[in-house]
Amino acid sequence: MAINSGSSSLKFQLFVMPEEELIVKGLFERIGSKEGIAFSYSLNNEKKAFTIEGTTHQEAVSFLIDFLMKEQLVASLEEITGVGHRVAHGGEYFKASSLVEEKESQMIHELSKLAPLHNPVNLAGIEAFKAALPGCPQVAIFDTAFHQTLPTSQYLYPIPMKYYREDKIRKYGFHGTSHQFVAQVGANILDKPLEELKLITCHLGNGASICGIKEGKSHMTSMGFTPIAGLMMGTRCGDLDPSVVTYLQEEKGYTAEEMNTILNNESGLLGVSELSNDFRDVIAAADMGEEQAIISLDMFTSKVKQTIGAYAAELGGVDGIIFTAGIGENSSWVREKCCEGLSFLGATIDVDSNNQSKEIISTKESTTAILVVPTNEELMIAKETMAIISK
Amino acid sequence: MAINSGSSSLKFQLFVMPEEELIVKGLFERIGSKEGIAFSYSLNNEKKAFTIEGTTHQEAVSFLIDFLMKEQLVASLEEITGVGHRVAHGGEYFKASSLVEEKESQMIHELSKLAPLHNPVNLAGIEAFKAALPGCPQVAIFDTAFHQTLPTSQYLYPIPMKYYREDKIRKYGFHGTSHQFVAQVGANILDKPLEELKLITCHLGNGASICGIKEGKSHMTSMGFTPIAGLMMGTRCGDLDPSVVTYLQEEKGYTAEEMNTILNNESGLLGVSELSNDFRDVIAAADMGEEQAIISLDMFTSKVKQTIGAYAAELGGVDGIIFTAGIGENSSWVREKCCEGLSFLGATIDVDSNNQSKEIISTKESTTAILVVPTNEELMIAKETMAIISK
Repeated sequence: MAINSGSSSLKFQLFVMPEEELIVKGLFERIGSKEGIAFSYSLNNEKKAFTIEGTTHQEAVSFLIDFLMKEQLVASLEEITGVGHRVAHGGEYFKASSLVEEKESQMIHELSKLAPLHNPVNLAGIEAFKAALPGCPQVAIFDTAFHQTLPTSQYLYPIPMKYYREDKIRKYGFHGTSHQFVAQVGANILDKPLEELKLITCHLGNGASICGIKEGKSHMTSMGFTPIAGLMMGTRCGDLDPSVVTYLQEEKGYTAEEMNTILNNESGLLGVSELSNDFRDVIAAADMGEEQAIISLDMFTSKVKQTIGAYAAELGGVDGIIFTAGIGENSSWVREKCCEGLSFLGATIDVDSNNQSKEIISTKESTTAILVVPTNEELMIAKETMAIISK
Repeated sequence: MAINSGSSSLKFQLFVMPEEELIVKGLFERIGSKEGIAFSYSLNNEKKAFTIEGTTHQEAVSFLIDFLMKEQLVASLEEITGVGHRVAHGGEYFKASSLVEEKESQMIHELSKLAPLHNPVNLAGIEAFKAALPGCPQVAIFDTAFHQTLPTSQYLYPIPMKYYREDKIRKYGFHGTSHQFVAQVGANILDKPLEELKLITCHLGNGASICGIKEGKSHMTSMGFTPIAGLMMGTRCGDLDPSVVTYLQEEKGYTAEEMNTILNNESGLLGVSELSNDFRDVIAAADMGEEQAIISLDMFTSKVKQTIGAYAAELGGVDGIIFTAGIGENSSWVREKCCEGLSFLGATIDVDSNNQSKEIISTKESTTAILVVPTNEELMIAKETMAIISK
């Protein structure tokens, strides 16, 4: 079972492993609200939704276990041999997925300082399953773990070292499960061992990050100390001249928290287009000639393209560029703009393949392949969980 | 006459134009101190230094004019046909060098808000020469003007548009005179019209910035709203995850001003090496195996390399990479590290040529030339001044 729990939600997918066969997936929303928990699921291509009683993650999980039994999706609770949980922040402690026992729970809790919005609710999900399925191993899969292979010169910030030593300020990177998953699938498509490839994986969704992968390991990534960093995103600004922060604070009297809100929730595509954080809306407006929509998309695609160029330089060339996640998988227009002018790298888009979102969308002559690989973080969580409990 | 005035200093160079022949150059320091102004100059390869009375830029300039007459470096004051002044910030108003009359003085004054440490003292230098040489045209050469050709998508930040509209927060870029100068010299060396070349100019000194030049115009540059942005530098951090700023403020209670001091004066090479902001010191320590020195240099050179890759991607390839300024002209080690692995771009360093700091330091087989071009901002100021007063 793969779990992704948020502050007011809990997503689940149940797989038969190692066959990777999906049995059921669903979503609890409005956890914590007085109107009851909204439950929806998809089974045999049929979707259902209703409201259940309760206000806690624990109640949602208890309901889920009963539901699985009642619907005969599992014959007994023992059939659930492991539960894998997406956990936002593993700090420097978790360099891989890990079984969660007393000590690990404590560490995830301590790392809440670096991810106050996510780690506590991730932990709530783990505790709920521990209570509902005593004896069933709980596994944590960290968004940061894949990037723990970054070399020191890539993860340190050029600020006084004491802030790394004392406050743990460094680049952690996120979306690790997704980058790792699409890199492996990409290597399969290219029919070469992952360890022999230089890959650049572009996870472009409402949150977006890019990863440079060498010898199968994350060598560099665009998100940093927090997920605000790197690329321009739906509502986030990405990397910035830090004086912009301090100048606005001095001019407007903004607190650190107010600045965080502006740069996390009001910036990016939304801030520049002044229309929407949804790429579909902004692309539609750009098609109508709306100037700020055009500029905001130019900014986004230029930043992706520049990051690909930067990572190619650091990796000393690139064998494959992989697009994934909501925008990366679905917008041929964005992919085309991001690759425009990359022929000097040996990467040229084939317009037809791109419009059909084929697996390989570069021309046959390209020495750098361009791929579209749907991400599947839940499957990756299930696979990681299997690997850990089989140890 | 080319002038660069700082808060407590004033540098000058007097040229015969258009022959570009240097007559004398010198420096006033300790302006404003009670111990008198330190004056040093270099004439016929001889250097002299002494202290003069006075505490203001005006007194330094009066002394300079008397000195030029007394030493018979000019036969009459009329021989000084124009004075060019480096001015830090021209905002969006000054898109080129400009004669400074009443209106321009006012504008430079108004733009002090964006460059509070520089524009007021630059203006003080202009006013001092206006008073000392009535009738002699004063010309302002702006650090920002060359970058006024940046496309909108390159100069806007992905933050809410109102901060651009109302507060003028955008990327301005600096070192413009230097980037423009070395690009022109580089085109001459490559024997091609500047307008037909794609160039990446790397101005690497204690302050450092990179510029992507297309059709002879600045298309992108690494410094931003302020000179703190872009590359890691001697004591500056460059672009950053903005959450690092707000996290440190929340953890430590730092004000915006304190953060500025940390990120401007205590970061960069100094902050990571914990040794020095001087590359020579840090390279020496790295040679002795000092780990933080090695890491800090890796960070610096990796960032330069990544920026070259990013700009090559945005320009759609690159014909020439030019190194200039203190480190760019003098450190073959830094140049080699910055270009390591760029062969996929067609840019490969020739070790011998690099060690001898020749004009062209790439191999003959390279399709992208790598050049070393000494910058000469004073000469560029003199040329710009000539051009403006001849109009």
